[in-house]
Amino acid sequence: MRKRAKAVAGALDGAGVDALLCLHGEGLPRPNVRYLSGFTGSSAALLIACGHRLLITDGRYREQAAAECPDWEVEILPPGGADAAAIGECCRSRGFARVGYEPQGITAGKLDELRDAGGAAFVPAGGLVEARRRRKGLDEIAAIEAAAGIVDAALEATAGLARAGVSERDLALELDVQMRRRGAEEPAFSTIVAAGPRSAIPHALPSERRLAAGDLVCIDCGAVVDGYRSDLTRVWVMGEPDAEQRRVHAAVLRAHDRALALVRPGAGGDDLNGAAREELAAAGIDGWWRHGIGHGVGLAIHEAPSLRAGTGAELAAGDVVTIEPGAYRSGWGGVRIEDLVLVTEAGARTLSAAPTALRVIG
Amino acid sequence: MRKRAKAVAGALDGAGVDALLCLHGEGLPRPNVRYLSGFTGSSAALLIACGHRLLITDGRYREQAAAECPDWEVEILPPGGADAAAIGECCRSRGFARVGYEPQGITAGKLDELRDAGGAAFVPAGGLVEARRRRKGLDEIAAIEAAAGIVDAALEATAGLARAGVSERDLALELDVQMRRRGAEEPAFSTIVAAGPRSAIPHALPSERRLAAGDLVCIDCGAVVDGYRSDLTRVWVMGEPDAEQRRVHAAVLRAHDRALALVRPGAGGDDLNGAAREELAAAGIDGWWRHGIGHGVGLAIHEAPSLRAGTGAELAAGDVVTIEPGAYRSGWGGVRIEDLVLVTEAGARTLSAAPTALRVIG
Repeated sequence: MRKRAKAVAGALDGAGVDALLCLHGEGLPRPNVRYLSGFTGSSAALLIACGHRLLITDGRYREQAAAECPDWEVEILPPGGADAAAIGECCRSRGFARVGYEPQGITAGKLDELRDAGGAAFVPAGGLVEARRRRKGLDEIAAIEAAAGIVDAALEATAGLARAGVSERDLALELDVQMRRRGAEEPAFSTIVAAGPRSAIPHALPSERRLAAGDLVCIDCGAVVDGYRSDLTRVWVMGEPDAEQRRVHAAVLRAHDRALALVRPGAGGDDLNGAAREELAAAGIDGWWRHGIGHGVGLAIHEAPSLRAGTGAELAAGDVVTIEPGAYRSGWGGVRIEDLVLVTEAGARTLSAAPTALRVIG
Repeated sequence: MRKRAKAVAGALDGAGVDALLCLHGEGLPRPNVRYLSGFTGSSAALLIACGHRLLITDGRYREQAAAECPDWEVEILPPGGADAAAIGECCRSRGFARVGYEPQGITAGKLDELRDAGGAAFVPAGGLVEARRRRKGLDEIAAIEAAAGIVDAALEATAGLARAGVSERDLALELDVQMRRRGAEEPAFSTIVAAGPRSAIPHALPSERRLAAGDLVCIDCGAVVDGYRSDLTRVWVMGEPDAEQRRVHAAVLRAHDRALALVRPGAGGDDLNGAAREELAAAGIDGWWRHGIGHGVGLAIHEAPSLRAGTGAELAAGDVVTIEPGAYRSGWGGVRIEDLVLVTEAGARTLSAAPTALRVIG
């Protein structure tokens, strides 16, 4: 972790700043602080420069900061923590004249406060940390893989409970418990269980709706291990699927497999989206798909690269991304098949092992 | 809910703007969007003006936005959703020349993008929604009270499992399950269970540490009902408490009760902090307390008013706030007693019912 902060410090000259300010707070949670320092508290500011690794937080985190960040100088401020005046004073006292801020990591209001408080000139310097976070190291891949393995096992354990009369909420709770019992720190996001017509809502929160014969059941969930997240979507069907359910699932699976086969360093997000869309178009359901083919996953559930159509993103070795085409029709339901893959020189290494086939339950 | 948006629209003239822009996204989650529109998806922009209630989101949320926001004009954009160009175009086409943004609700980067995209002049207009969110309505109080009741019952159910050898993580999971089984949508925040010396860490994440004889066990948790949160902290002790454990707990409880007795409209946060600190000082442990006496709770776990010392906040009727003095000593442990109260003309109405006494378990 010390290496990460050093690498960022080494990039400051090129960015034209003396130091980088990284903020993390409840209203604007930012994995960069944990990534660089290991600090897991809810509120902190980092100042990084050559020879300086300063973590500013408040008294609630005195013990935790000392334990989690042994390589960092820790400054404990009164309740309220890293306010603008304190940050300005830290910059002034250490001689940081030009301090970079992360444009996506600071509110407009906080930036105004910093500039009013003075102590340094604050200038935009975004993406320095995100660029490094993309290329996952071995320990990061191991954590993500562990999180993916937990989801595979939790999903398997939960499938046995899925039968008519069980609610979406019951299934989501069971999944969450199974993940936690297997070592997940928490769910990677609010677990999605959407049955019947509700499966047409890609991001449905679980409801009291009870599983009934013929339902498609879309399950999208992830686990957290050492702060790192996994993400998986599978579709079940309550009883034997009808022809349309089979047809749509098969088309989405072909789209998934086509995109997966294209994954390699240098492949474009647009190529993956295009290939998947071709498969859906061949089935006449490309209009049913209304989101991107995938996104990066790591300390954040959505991080670089975004694989939405039109972003121009290219995959690179070390990326961990989802591949998740879907098809949704209002009133009928939806199908999404999502895997988490590591981009390697040899192509995609799938980190999840759950079978992609349409699973019959109930 | 329509009334809320209308009230905000009515305040725009006074703020010198034609419309208010409220953003909500994964990186910058903002309850104002749910408060005003009822929309629970992960990404949206609202534009509110006299006669206009516009919700901008992306195709993932087409069904959900229509179902949750029947009184709103919903504009569905391609994946990526409410980007700066789209927001600018919405402002231009509707003739909003001066559009207020929420300084704490927009990143510096997004504001730059909006200003580059044009379509309107974007000027700061903060606090319009937060001011209204402070005064809780009957339905909001009912949801918070339900969430508090769930925690009371879950804590009681979990106490029976607390014995030597059970880990902090086991207890936290049991609490979370008990809350969910009783109807909580999710925990209001990551449940804190901290045993033995770890209880000196006010915001400890549950670890594999197992309960042992003599441990203080600090439990801080909340539930979510209809998006509204509760917050409660209690302390247990494994076996008969020793004299120091009794003494510190009694002092913190006196501090809690003193502050609680002062709660009424017009009371200052500084008065509550001062009274609680006096009680801790009388026991010689005021130096062990390193956070504020409380904070507002509602759709967000920390919202206005902040009752940290020095903020100058005054309580008002309809506020829902925590009262939570604490005392922590490194190597020994910690005690915090937290209740959630509604501020009424008659004083504090406590929304949680769990006994405040030091509970012997194990």
